[in-house]
Amino acid sequence: MSSITFFTSVQDQLQFVEQRIREQAGEDHHPDLRSALGHILSAGGKRIRPTLGLLVGNMLGAPEEKLITLGASVELLHTATLVHDDLIDGALLRRGIPTLNARWSPAATVLTGDFLFARAAKLAAETDYLPLMKLFADTLATIVNGELTQMFSARGVINRDNYYQRIYAKTASLFEMASLAAAMVSTEDEETRAAMKVFGYEVGMAFQIVDDILDFTGEQSAVGKPIGSDLLNGLVTLPAIHFAEAYPRNEDVLSLPEGGWKDTERVQRLVDSIRQSEAIQRAMDEARQAISRALKSLSEAPVSPEKEALENLAKFIVDRKI
Amino acid sequence: MSSITFFTSVQDQLQFVEQRIREQAGEDHHPDLRSALGHILSAGGKRIRPTLGLLVGNMLGAPEEKLITLGASVELLHTATLVHDDLIDGALLRRGIPTLNARWSPAATVLTGDFLFARAAKLAAETDYLPLMKLFADTLATIVNGELTQMFSARGVINRDNYYQRIYAKTASLFEMASLAAAMVSTEDEETRAAMKVFGYEVGMAFQIVDDILDFTGEQSAVGKPIGSDLLNGLVTLPAIHFAEAYPRNEDVLSLPEGGWKDTERVQRLVDSIRQSEAIQRAMDEARQAISRALKSLSEAPVSPEKEALENLAKFIVDRKI
Repeated sequence: MSSITFFTSVQDQLQFVEQRIREQAGEDHHPDLRSALGHILSAGGKRIRPTLGLLVGNMLGAPEEKLITLGASVELLHTATLVHDDLIDGALLRRGIPTLNARWSPAATVLTGDFLFARAAKLAAETDYLPLMKLFADTLATIVNGELTQMFSARGVINRDNYYQRIYAKTASLFEMASLAAAMVSTEDEETRAAMKVFGYEVGMAFQIVDDILDFTGEQSAVGKPIGSDLLNGLVTLPAIHFAEAYPRNEDVLSLPEGGWKDTERVQRLVDSIRQSEAIQRAMDEARQAISRALKSLSEAPVSPEKEALENLAKFIVDRKI
Repeated sequence: MSSITFFTSVQDQLQFVEQRIREQAGEDHHPDLRSALGHILSAGGKRIRPTLGLLVGNMLGAPEEKLITLGASVELLHTATLVHDDLIDGALLRRGIPTLNARWSPAATVLTGDFLFARAAKLAAETDYLPLMKLFADTLATIVNGELTQMFSARGVINRDNYYQRIYAKTASLFEMASLAAAMVSTEDEETRAAMKVFGYEVGMAFQIVDDILDFTGEQSAVGKPIGSDLLNGLVTLPAIHFAEAYPRNEDVLSLPEGGWKDTERVQRLVDSIRQSEAIQRAMDEARQAISRALKSLSEAPVSPEKEALENLAKFIVDRKI
C-alpha cells in the first residue's frame, strides 16, 4: 500500500522530528506549560507536513539535520495555529482528544499558542538560512490573514474563488512552505524550487479538498466532528459548491446566503442531498486533478526511490479515508 | 530638558519607523483588519523601544535603514504582546484608549495579535542578519514564558527574585533586545555588544520599576488605570516589597499571601501606607542604581552627541512622570 511505502522511508527521520518537537517543552519552562505542551504535542496527528518536507529534501539531497529542524518548525507552526483556532472556534475536541481550550483557560491557551510560535520561529532561524525566515513569516501572515478574512466574511456564501483562497490560506500555504523550504535548503536552482513550490501547493489544496469531502462522507467517529459541520457553521466547501452548480434552484441551496445554514434541519437535509449526489465525485475529481498537477511538477526529477515515495505521498492524499 | 534633547535627535528616524509600522496595515488585507491595525498602531505610546535602538545604533554608526527596520520590528513585537495581554487581562482601556478587546471579539483579537507577530518576524528577517532572528525568537519565548509563569503563580507572594524575573520577562527582555540588536547590526565587537546588552537590560529594569512605582504614586488620569491596580490583582511589586521588608509585622502585608489582596478595602489602606512610606523612595533608589549601571556600561564609548543622547534617555527613565 502506498501509504506504508512512503511513511516507512522517512520513519527514522520522523522520529528525530518528533524529538526536536518534544525538546521545545524543555525543562526551563513552567511545569504547567510543560504539561500543556506535552498534551498538545502528543495529540500528534499524522505529521503529514514534516513528511512532505522530508521526502522533498531526501529526493533533492538536502542535509538531513536541516530537514529535521525544518520539519519540527513547520509542525510547530501548524500546531500553534491549531491551538489558537480551537480557542477561536470554541472547539472542545480535536482528533477526538480534548483541546487545550477544553482543559485550560482561554488566556493560557492564547499564551501557549504564542509560545509555540516563538519555538517554531526559533527552529526556522536554526536552519541558518535567511530566505527561510522570510518564507516562515510570510506563511504565518497568510494563515492569519486568511482566518481573519474568514471571520469577517458573510456566511453561507457560495463562491469558488473565496473557497480556493480560504483553503490556500488555511492549508495549502503551509504545505507549500514545507515543500519549498525543503527545496531551498537543497538547491539554488530556481526551476527546481518553483517546481517543489507547486508540488506543495497542489498537494495542500488536494488535502484540504479531501478533508472537506470527508466532512460530508466520513464517519463522525473517524473525522472527530459532526458530519456537515462546515455547512452548519456557514462555510460552503467544494462539495456544496458543485451541488449548487448542478442544482441552482434547490431551495436549501438558495437559502444558504440568506442564513439558511443556521437552520439545522435544513442543513441536515442538504448534507444528505449532497452525499447522494454526484457533487462528491466532482469535488474528488478536482482533488485528483490537483494531484495530477503535483505529479507533473515532479516530472523533471530523475527516477529514484525518493521520487517514488513522494509520488506515493501525493497519491495517498486522495486515497485516504480519514 | 533631557527628554526633549534625546527625542529630538532621532525625531526624523522615528518618523520612518512610524511609516514602516503603518505599512504593515497594507492594502492587501481585509478592511476590518486594516482598521483594527490602524487603531492599534495609532494608539502609539512613546515608542521608547525604537528610540533606544536608534540611539544605540546611531552611537555605534549602524546603517540607518537596518535601525529603522529593527525599530519597527521591536515595536510591533511589543504591540502584539500588548494585544494578547489585553485579551488575557480582559482590559478595556490602555493608555486611556479603548483596547482592541473592548471593541472586537476575543477571536479577532487573538488573530490580530498573531498577525502583528507575523509582521514583526518579517521585519526582523528583513534585517538580513540571522543571529537577529534567533534573538527575536528567544525574546518572544522569554516574554510568553514569563506571562505563563505569572498566570500560574500564586498571587500575593512577596518575593524579590520572582519580581525581578517577572519584570525581566515582561519589559527588560525587549529593551535588552532593542539595544543588543542595534549593536549587532553595528559591530562585530563582542565587548561592545555585551555592553549594549547590559545597557538595554538595566534601562528596561529601571523602566518597569518606575512604572510599578507610578502604579502607587501616579494620577489615575495619567497612568490610565486605577491606583494600586497591580496589588488589586495580587501582583506584589517593588514598592510593596520594600514596604514589607520595613514593616514585616504589618497586618495588611501579612494578609497578602493568604488572599488579602482580594480585599479591596484592605488593599486601598495598604496602598495609602505604601505611598506615605519611604518604600517609594527605596524602590526609586533601585531604579536609579540600575540607571547608574546602564551609564557605566557606556563608559567605554567615546564622547559624542549620540552618546550624550543615550545618557539622556537613561536619565529620562527615572525622571518621567507618566
